[in-house]
Amino acid sequence: MTEHIRVDGERLWRSIMEMAEIGATANGGSHRLTLSDEDKLARDLFAGWCADAGLALTVDQMGDMFARRDGSDAARAPVGMGSHLDTQPYGGRFDGVFGVMAGLEVIRTLNDHGVMTVAALEVVNWTNEEGARFAPSMLASGVYGGVFDLDWAQSRQAVDSGAALIDELKRIGYYGEADLRAHEFSAFFECHIEQGPILDSAGISVGVVNAAQGFRWYDIKLEGFASHTGSTPMPGRRNALLGLARVAQAVDDIAHEYAPLARGTVGSQVAVEPGSRNVIPGAVEFTVDLRHPSAATLDAMDAALRAVCAETAADIGLELTLEQISDTVPVAFDEGCVAAVKRACERLGVSHQTITSGAGHDACYIAKRTPAAMLFAPCKDGVSHHESESAEPEYLEAVCNALLHAVLDIAGVKA
Amino acid sequence: MTEHIRVDGERLWRSIMEMAEIGATANGGSHRLTLSDEDKLARDLFAGWCADAGLALTVDQMGDMFARRDGSDAARAPVGMGSHLDTQPYGGRFDGVFGVMAGLEVIRTLNDHGVMTVAALEVVNWTNEEGARFAPSMLASGVYGGVFDLDWAQSRQAVDSGAALIDELKRIGYYGEADLRAHEFSAFFECHIEQGPILDSAGISVGVVNAAQGFRWYDIKLEGFASHTGSTPMPGRRNALLGLARVAQAVDDIAHEYAPLARGTVGSQVAVEPGSRNVIPGAVEFTVDLRHPSAATLDAMDAALRAVCAETAADIGLELTLEQISDTVPVAFDEGCVAAVKRACERLGVSHQTITSGAGHDACYIAKRTPAAMLFAPCKDGVSHHESESAEPEYLEAVCNALLHAVLDIAGVKA
Repeated sequence: MTEHIRVDGERLWRSIMEMAEIGATANGGSHRLTLSDEDKLARDLFAGWCADAGLALTVDQMGDMFARRDGSDAARAPVGMGSHLDTQPYGGRFDGVFGVMAGLEVIRTLNDHGVMTVAALEVVNWTNEEGARFAPSMLASGVYGGVFDLDWAQSRQAVDSGAALIDELKRIGYYGEADLRAHEFSAFFECHIEQGPILDSAGISVGVVNAAQGFRWYDIKLEGFASHTGSTPMPGRRNALLGLARVAQAVDDIAHEYAPLARGTVGSQVAVEPGSRNVIPGAVEFTVDLRHPSAATLDAMDAALRAVCAETAADIGLELTLEQISDTVPVAFDEGCVAAVKRACERLGVSHQTITSGAGHDACYIAKRTPAAMLFAPCKDGVSHHESESAEPEYLEAVCNALLHAVLDIAGVKA
Repeated sequence: MTEHIRVDGERLWRSIMEMAEIGATANGGSHRLTLSDEDKLARDLFAGWCADAGLALTVDQMGDMFARRDGSDAARAPVGMGSHLDTQPYGGRFDGVFGVMAGLEVIRTLNDHGVMTVAALEVVNWTNEEGARFAPSMLASGVYGGVFDLDWAQSRQAVDSGAALIDELKRIGYYGEADLRAHEFSAFFECHIEQGPILDSAGISVGVVNAAQGFRWYDIKLEGFASHTGSTPMPGRRNALLGLARVAQAVDDIAHEYAPLARGTVGSQVAVEPGSRNVIPGAVEFTVDLRHPSAATLDAMDAALRAVCAETAADIGLELTLEQISDTVPVAFDEGCVAAVKRACERLGVSHQTITSGAGHDACYIAKRTPAAMLFAPCKDGVSHHESESAEPEYLEAVCNALLHAVLDIAGVKA
């Protein structure tokens, strides 16, 4: 009987903290960009731990690392667990790392208790989830999910040196032979910090992620006319910043209109020309990010955005350029996997709630081919992508226990 | 009798065009930064023309050039005419240059007709009106007007090389011995393009400038909290860009409330942090520019700005830092000088209208010590500080004729 087995929360925490030493920043975060020297060290550390746990390591053509623990039935595809070890520039200690270490802790716990599963288990480190050094994000899981071509992904260039991803893989010794497009899982679970404030503010231990929001990204330019702030009368001005002001407020209003799940944001990437305090803004460039778990609602939000941009431009006399640069469709996670997580929480008696992921994760692309689900842990004030990112050991332990029991549920335990 | 004397519009135009050759840009403008090699060439050209016209040149400790034509009464202080020969980076051909060339054309015309004035006349080129290479603008006229200390002004550093203004004056051979604080005029007239659309759109030849707006500049920072655009629910966001949006709209509204003379602008110098499309803006820094010819109205606009910033910050949960960095008080030009310009226009039969300057000019600081007025010429679509700056020869000629007769009026003609 495995129902009383629990992970070792202290061991999990120590592993996360030890990993955080690689690329540690002065303010308590981690700076470990994809395929950097620090990423190599992190991979080496992980590989060593996997070997210690008796796992067989495979590396694929995107540098993804699969650490396998055999099951009793070699015919069943493995149940995967994992996330990513790369970080944002001056990012936090938990984003990604927690998901890989939670998978490893499940394996270690099963080793401790001598439990063999029916399906094999695999702990996975996906390459370049963050997209900070190589765009776009979730690159390797996107190849796995059929979203990106392998050749295209391998040729992505580092923003710092311009080096191709495949050359950087070879440089740090993590280019493998395995074809990730041929890899199969019977299910995949990703643990992650929420990166939002919902669980933390409610004091809930485990977020059972049943869906991920779709999101659409837009590049918008409004062009007016730059002229002197003093000698240009108010009537007849074509102030591009005023256009941005109205669109920014409208985007916020649109999201509130489709509450509580909608999100709408003019992002912090804004350029205002020509850049002088006594010149009326002649042009602005900015981005819009709309999110909702329903494609139909996203369609409505999209239409509202386009309408307000057109009206604003016409009203102020601006030239509008609106380009939708991405359309990431909503993901509904596998009902069976979600139910397994929920059952695990109930059996463990930990507080949990169903939650929709507002951000993209590797599991979103993996879910295109494989039954998948995610488990969220609360993080302090919802802060992520920041050195001050923080999570409580007790919450991480609770989520890891839920992962353990959901995985045992799906993989099966050899009698 | 001098009432039928007219300036030579073609000569005026040719001089402006010849000056524009120095630092000419590919798109028809001029790039002649203060105390650059191009500025030296412009000064040399002007000095040569002054010598040809029989004028005596004095250079002062700020590099200002005074080209004097004696009058019959040595006891009377000279009547000054002029503006500046420096330009904005990739600026236009008329801003500043027109005022200096108009003064020279008046002298040339009086020479042609053998007219002697009672008071002496002086054509002046003021150093560093633009403030583009050395901040702040109107630097030398500000020393003249007692706004800036001489030592402080001489030690201003070039934004490109860091060289002190006094060293750059010496380098190009335009550091003089004369103390500008001791210089006296009996009156001063500055011709300038309007740099706004009022005269051009109305087809009026001469703007009789009776006042210059006061203006107040503010540096404002709004700090909220940067977090993920997807995982941060709408309630509880502290979006700094939304704060800028509301303030930008409010500043526009405030100016409309005090129509038609008020101006209110969030300038094109805007910084949004941290600069990522999927991060909610955590902080914005921007500038505000409020203008009105009445100090009392400026007080009311100032109060409205401060109120809306405080309300917006409180409403969104932002931290507000508002610093007023300048308070340029409104200027009422001398009634006698303004009346002389108006009388000249009436006698010449040219269309004219009273206008308030929205921008700062050398004459605004000169007016602190000396009876002064300005004459505006229409410029195409009000465009200035741009290579495409354009003015019609006929308008420039009309303004120059008004200058001629206003100056004769004030200086007196020797019988």
